[in-house]
Amino acid sequence: MNKQFILDNLRNIPDYPKPGIQFQDVSTVFKNTECLSMLSDELYKLYKDKGITKVVGIESRGFVLGAIIATRLGAGFVMCRKPGKLPGMTRKASYQKEYGYDCVEIHDDAIDTNDVVLIHDDLLATGGSMLAACQLVRSFSPKEVFVNFILELQMEGLKGREALKNENVTALLEVKR
Amino acid sequence: MNKQFILDNLRNIPDYPKPGIQFQDVSTVFKNTECLSMLSDELYKLYKDKGITKVVGIESRGFVLGAIIATRLGAGFVMCRKPGKLPGMTRKASYQKEYGYDCVEIHDDAIDTNDVVLIHDDLLATGGSMLAACQLVRSFSPKEVFVNFILELQMEGLKGREALKNENVTALLEVKR
Repeated sequence: MNKQFILDNLRNIPDYPKPGIQFQDVSTVFKNTECLSMLSDELYKLYKDKGITKVVGIESRGFVLGAIIATRLGAGFVMCRKPGKLPGMTRKASYQKEYGYDCVEIHDDAIDTNDVVLIHDDLLATGGSMLAACQLVRSFSPKEVFVNFILELQMEGLKGREALKNENVTALLEVKR
Repeated sequence: MNKQFILDNLRNIPDYPKPGIQFQDVSTVFKNTECLSMLSDELYKLYKDKGITKVVGIESRGFVLGAIIATRLGAGFVMCRKPGKLPGMTRKASYQKEYGYDCVEIHDDAIDTNDVVLIHDDLLATGGSMLAACQLVRSFSPKEVFVNFILELQMEGLKGREALKNENVTALLEVKR
């Protein structure tokens, strides 16, 4: 994988969603077919021998590469969504945000004890939503859980890796700020 | 493609999101790897010779098979999102819902005049959001536009096909109510 090529296709949007934040926009990576292929190949190399049976993507940017790698690995794809979006019975987990709390949900029949699960999202920053997703997935008692991000944001005060210290985490790319 | 196998994996949720609606839940199709593979193969057969360069997925269930078929076709993947979710400059189009209006957005640099575009979503019901997505995509003057749904819902009073009568539309499955 040509990391620099992908990083060159990543767009930095200053002061979004609020002043002082440098937003890492993966949409410019997704629209480039070479970038998508490289990321898919790299993910496949990392997880092809792990016996993954379900890939959980976190809404909604995590659905993109999550769905691609699910079919590539011969696994099913499970949506981890914002509250109230899934029509069936769900399990929920909440996580703290800067102001207040948010919540993620998974359908109650989405995972079983025979599954080996890869949870995927685009970006690791504080790790809050991923930690909640991990708690949700682990509540199904699957055989094993892996966690992957396209991009890990590394900056002063951001403790995403620490929040996920009990999980088996990979990131395909890192951005230091 | 074994249509019946996929339809057997589709879940009907009565009275969701409100009384009288039979919600067609594709999450049970997505979590089945055979279903995902069959749908991907079928989409590939339909569009492999069309020279597709961009696949536009409509948020957020349209991201799943949209992203899979984008990499399979060697095309880039573009997110068509709900208002306020895309961080860069966008183009917007609104559409009428039962009560009031909603809106979809695409990044202003997502498509260009050399593109051949496939727009994908999970379900054709009224066709409102897809019609808005088509208007958005056509505002970039791409070479050609194709439209695909996993599932076309056919029932009394539902005029999705009519709403999209000027578009080149396929649906992989039909459900009659």
